[in-house]
Amino acid sequence: MAVNKKVRTFISQSSWIRKMFEEGNRMRKQYGGPNIFDFSIGNPNVEPPPEFKKALQQVVSDDSAGVHGYMPNAGFFETRESVAALLSETYGVPLGPDNVIMTCGAAGALNVICKVLLEPGDEVLIPTPCFMEYRFYADNANGTAIFVKTCGDFSLDLSAMGHAISERTKIVLINSPNNPTGKVYDEASIQGLSEILEIKSRTYGREIYLVSDEPYRDVVYDGINVPSIFRYYKNSIIASSYSKSLSLAGERIGYLAVNPALSDIDEVIGGLVFYNRTLGFVNAPALMQRVIAKIQGVTVNVEAYARKRKLLCDGLASIGYKFFRPDGTFYLFPKSPIDDDIEFVHALQKRRILTVPGSGFGWPGHFRIAFCVDDATIVNSMKGFEEAFREGY
Amino acid sequence: MAVNKKVRTFISQSSWIRKMFEEGNRMRKQYGGPNIFDFSIGNPNVEPPPEFKKALQQVVSDDSAGVHGYMPNAGFFETRESVAALLSETYGVPLGPDNVIMTCGAAGALNVICKVLLEPGDEVLIPTPCFMEYRFYADNANGTAIFVKTCGDFSLDLSAMGHAISERTKIVLINSPNNPTGKVYDEASIQGLSEILEIKSRTYGREIYLVSDEPYRDVVYDGINVPSIFRYYKNSIIASSYSKSLSLAGERIGYLAVNPALSDIDEVIGGLVFYNRTLGFVNAPALMQRVIAKIQGVTVNVEAYARKRKLLCDGLASIGYKFFRPDGTFYLFPKSPIDDDIEFVHALQKRRILTVPGSGFGWPGHFRIAFCVDDATIVNSMKGFEEAFREGY
Repeated sequence: MAVNKKVRTFISQSSWIRKMFEEGNRMRKQYGGPNIFDFSIGNPNVEPPPEFKKALQQVVSDDSAGVHGYMPNAGFFETRESVAALLSETYGVPLGPDNVIMTCGAAGALNVICKVLLEPGDEVLIPTPCFMEYRFYADNANGTAIFVKTCGDFSLDLSAMGHAISERTKIVLINSPNNPTGKVYDEASIQGLSEILEIKSRTYGREIYLVSDEPYRDVVYDGINVPSIFRYYKNSIIASSYSKSLSLAGERIGYLAVNPALSDIDEVIGGLVFYNRTLGFVNAPALMQRVIAKIQGVTVNVEAYARKRKLLCDGLASIGYKFFRPDGTFYLFPKSPIDDDIEFVHALQKRRILTVPGSGFGWPGHFRIAFCVDDATIVNSMKGFEEAFREGY
Repeated sequence: MAVNKKVRTFISQSSWIRKMFEEGNRMRKQYGGPNIFDFSIGNPNVEPPPEFKKALQQVVSDDSAGVHGYMPNAGFFETRESVAALLSETYGVPLGPDNVIMTCGAAGALNVICKVLLEPGDEVLIPTPCFMEYRFYADNANGTAIFVKTCGDFSLDLSAMGHAISERTKIVLINSPNNPTGKVYDEASIQGLSEILEIKSRTYGREIYLVSDEPYRDVVYDGINVPSIFRYYKNSIIASSYSKSLSLAGERIGYLAVNPALSDIDEVIGGLVFYNRTLGFVNAPALMQRVIAKIQGVTVNVEAYARKRKLLCDGLASIGYKFFRPDGTFYLFPKSPIDDDIEFVHALQKRRILTVPGSGFGWPGHFRIAFCVDDATIVNSMKGFEEAFREGY
């Protein structure tokens, strides 16, 4: 056997999202781009804002010596200072440059966090539906992902989470605004979860860490507020990126931020920097670190996503689809009109509509529509969505 | 305990190179930059070539939709095609885009390779002296690094390597041109090693993979040729980056290339792409992928390093230092004039000369000088090198 035993299983269970994305690439070649309604992957289609382009030009024009070379593994001091300043405002807790480590996106940040905190066999508790790649991040650190269902409206089921926490739980990982549901966990949920984690940490005599994956924090609608975990729970770490807020998903630029009140913070930060280096990231890409330092607080045009959300929600509602209207993200997670979400996704695919079955998010019976696409794709897909809905009943 | 048990030990044994680099930063603040002779880290000081700057400008000016977004996890097709074309020439074996995966530097490539190939407890055999971070890459994949000494002239000790191979050996990892010695393993060594690996693979009834870490391939002197492992051993993979050949160490752009003759190649490539995604790299940074696609075969001005090598070698030889004159890289690895290399490095540090003890490369009794510095730093450090040498005797 050439590859390790796990890889085979993992690949066979692997990302439905990527499978559908690659299916889309195949179908585009076959049918031509405009005839494919590809809602498979969360690849932002709203372009980076003008401020980004200006900052990129500035950074590229500066050819001082060593700008493309190594810097401290945590990232450029100026970048971390700039990120920390905005985060202090956003999270209502004073953060310094030493609380921030620049990473290769949020996926890089989460791998580093798991690697530092988990002992072999430790558990990472994750509410579903969720981005299922989390389980591989836990496994990379020899931990195990434990999934706990959310309530019917996709809010945190605190009672279920409390019951699922054991002496092996080391991390509780939330993602808000949530992929795939678009749910933002509200202030009361975060407060309630924090209280549970404090009690359970005392009960088991070891810290449980709250990690929040927040790349969609800036992509929210109707003025909704994403609560700050730092204000409620001291042993907390945030993982985030500019993949969605600035539409830079391919550039792998993100960060992790550590609550200044975290227990043994120096040891944890030393460990995070160590694994940022030795997992092979070494540091976040230098050029993008210098760009984002200049444009903290700038985001893509979220109104464009709001418009797409309205187009999609209004269209699908009028057909009869049932769904939770997302608070944020560019995902909609409707109920499948038939029980078998995979079958329904295939029914859509016959109409050249690519979506991802809820089974790919630990939540069968639903499917995900990534609406980070042209308005025309949404409008022109409605006929197919309607046909599949009628046939599906 | 906040962090996992291993991290503490690892950090305490951790990179001498980074320790000295950070010491250098501290001393620069205290004494001023020009008064510090910092030979600690392999951070290229020869600037990226004009072709790079031109390509970067071109890429930045192209603001087509989606250029900063996700692409297939293996990287842009055009980039892999361009890289594969040059590699086919370099290695004398025809490679296609599917044999290449773009990675976050060679460190990213090596982590991905270890993660795919190693079962828990598998061994990675590595000749010393070497870059000691390899042991963390092996550990990240639950493998173990086994070190085997090279000969007196730093050439491969094939007999010792043959004896060290066991039924647990899965990877033999070489680095040529070598950090820290500058040695290029010659054709006969590579051929001999390949024969041993074929025999041992048969003996133990499982494949042993030859992995070559080659970021210094283009930084060689006196027209020396770096042999192609692809021509001698089918189960071979190359990890490399543009960190040194284009002075882009902070940009995290590299690749891995798989021998087209590798056993079960589709499975291995599928696994490599899977772990490139799920270790959190997702893909190599998009912008730099587009840049390097345009400038395959371009390198920094290696003559500048050749000049520095001559300055340093001539200066140290006239003092009385003993060393192997490097075939490539920008490292010199002289014998410490006293047995205790750490003590000698401290003696140099008193003269504000920062080097790295051989103990940091599994080879006490020597020390490493990274000569990727201004010519003036080399010239002005000679007084200190001489004083320490006299005192050291």
